[in-house]
Amino acid sequence: MTRHYNFCAGPAALPTAVLERASREILDYQGRGLSVMEMSHRSSEFIAIAERAEADLRALLAIPANYRVLFLQGGASLQFAMLPLNLLGKGGSANFIQTGIWGKKALTEARHLGFECVVAASSEANGHIEVPPQSTLTPSADAAYLHYTSNETIGGLAFDYVPKVDAPLVCDMSSDILSKPIDVSDYGVIYAGAQKNIGPAGLTLVIVREDLLDQAVTPSPTLFNYRQLAEAGSMVNTPPTYAWYLAGLVFQWLQEEVGGLEAMREINQRKAQKLYAAIDSSDFYSNPIAVRSRSLMNVPFVLADEALDAAFLREADAAGLLNLKGHRSVGGMRASLYNAVPEAAVDALIDFMADFEQRKG
Amino acid sequence: MTRHYNFCAGPAALPTAVLERASREILDYQGRGLSVMEMSHRSSEFIAIAERAEADLRALLAIPANYRVLFLQGGASLQFAMLPLNLLGKGGSANFIQTGIWGKKALTEARHLGFECVVAASSEANGHIEVPPQSTLTPSADAAYLHYTSNETIGGLAFDYVPKVDAPLVCDMSSDILSKPIDVSDYGVIYAGAQKNIGPAGLTLVIVREDLLDQAVTPSPTLFNYRQLAEAGSMVNTPPTYAWYLAGLVFQWLQEEVGGLEAMREINQRKAQKLYAAIDSSDFYSNPIAVRSRSLMNVPFVLADEALDAAFLREADAAGLLNLKGHRSVGGMRASLYNAVPEAAVDALIDFMADFEQRKG
Repeated sequence: MTRHYNFCAGPAALPTAVLERASREILDYQGRGLSVMEMSHRSSEFIAIAERAEADLRALLAIPANYRVLFLQGGASLQFAMLPLNLLGKGGSANFIQTGIWGKKALTEARHLGFECVVAASSEANGHIEVPPQSTLTPSADAAYLHYTSNETIGGLAFDYVPKVDAPLVCDMSSDILSKPIDVSDYGVIYAGAQKNIGPAGLTLVIVREDLLDQAVTPSPTLFNYRQLAEAGSMVNTPPTYAWYLAGLVFQWLQEEVGGLEAMREINQRKAQKLYAAIDSSDFYSNPIAVRSRSLMNVPFVLADEALDAAFLREADAAGLLNLKGHRSVGGMRASLYNAVPEAAVDALIDFMADFEQRKG
Repeated sequence: MTRHYNFCAGPAALPTAVLERASREILDYQGRGLSVMEMSHRSSEFIAIAERAEADLRALLAIPANYRVLFLQGGASLQFAMLPLNLLGKGGSANFIQTGIWGKKALTEARHLGFECVVAASSEANGHIEVPPQSTLTPSADAAYLHYTSNETIGGLAFDYVPKVDAPLVCDMSSDILSKPIDVSDYGVIYAGAQKNIGPAGLTLVIVREDLLDQAVTPSPTLFNYRQLAEAGSMVNTPPTYAWYLAGLVFQWLQEEVGGLEAMREINQRKAQKLYAAIDSSDFYSNPIAVRSRSLMNVPFVLADEALDAAFLREADAAGLLNLKGHRSVGGMRASLYNAVPEAAVDALIDFMADFEQRKG
């Protein structure tokens, strides 16, 4: 059994300790004679697992009591439809800050469904290399909410501030949730696909302030309705139980092994700073993002000679450094440094990059 | 490590051999140094897993080439909304045969979304103890499709025939798919939540005839659109990769260990017939369903004295016979005998029931 270093952008690395525990319990959960996968979602065993996961998440993020936590399906992309359908029932427009591909998808889906959409700010003019500063945000007077993407996974662009606007803030945190402490009370809705920092693909977290539960567009699909989902404890129908359980194990790992989100942030900052320093000190590797907007989670970089890309990826893979290929829309390389990617992985990558540069640069 | 007999209605028992293989591969899939959960859904490794799963499912069910197979999220309940939104864009009404709680939910959701719904037949008058015969079906002339539930999981009621109507047939096979051979060409759409006979909760299969891909209501959420999902190989966004992989292992188990769906049907018939025979030969246990409409998958039964229910469940659990409690809307007991429940489990249950009756009856 070998565990390589996995820099995949998502579905992404999970903590080895979490997978080891899952492996031990997969046939027989705590002597009950069955797998978590084989339990009724309404059984006392599973309810205990589900409630523990929510309690641990609430502790990690210090989620205030007036926020509900939903464990859903469909990925962040389904939220691109669910958000306007839950938040625009009393009128107003959806406002967006555009900083890359994922934010654009959120806007495109809201517009596709026929809602009025306003671009309150955009980094498109600079090629999405620097996040628009607070001073340039121009939400519309009728904004029912302002949506932004705290970390653009593909571009490697992250907000270095939390936007301050009158309308409720809605944030796609798919690729940086749980990477550092946040103040949940800054937000109306936080959502995230699980497959980066939470657990396996197939689970989506939504953290929603209670006063936003009752402004849904009608009629909408019952399973879209935040109020009904909240009242049913995310069990209007069968939830993705095994993914929920695994997310719970990740929350426990964050609390017990890492020591919470402040400790996680320090580790993540150290990992990213090392890699950016290695890139910046080289003439062979480069990253285009403005320093203040650089992502701690996704570090895209290009080689001075694109013709070496294939050799870089082949040799990295052979050295146990997996999934460094950049997104097909961007090219080059991308190292995703999510919570479960250990510091040793970054050290090994930096060593490999230096060696490769020396031989081929 | 103990494996008890699990009669849960869903999420339900999985084959022990499948969980054993998953356990062996969970940290390191075939020497690649990472878990299937940690792979990009667009990686060559995962694409191979996904394509193999679809090919094996196509072989098991002999799915014709003019049908697409979708691996989705949201459960059968999300299909209750997706079906009318995909099939009623060119007008017409949704027709339903009502034989229990799940079929009613499908109708209620279509009606909730504002679509014209017609009840083409119902067993409500007989208390859902016998499926309406073919001769009583009265679909409307404008039916865009006729929906039915081949096996009602809660009531324990199953169709003993495939309805013949002019409109495309849409079937919720959540609780009996893969339990026996079917002729897919009888159907326009077949769908099923995974958590009974396919794999873990969080995956939904949709098998749809190609000519039905282009009659969606617009605008609808992008992730609802069968055509777009089909063209993207179910990867418009990240699919539930681990559940897809596990479903693939179940398909392999069905083909290689069980010997295909004809062999599976024989085993399922034997299991159910044994249990119904034990119930029918007793004055202490009873099942209300008309013999021709009895489910092979879900066998509800009641004790002559309801006051003994708690003792029955407690003693059964202690004997390693898990999750026999009937659905909260019905009460009594229910033994679900899905594919992964071995014949030995049914034998053990029958022995326990006889012993309990002798002591308490």
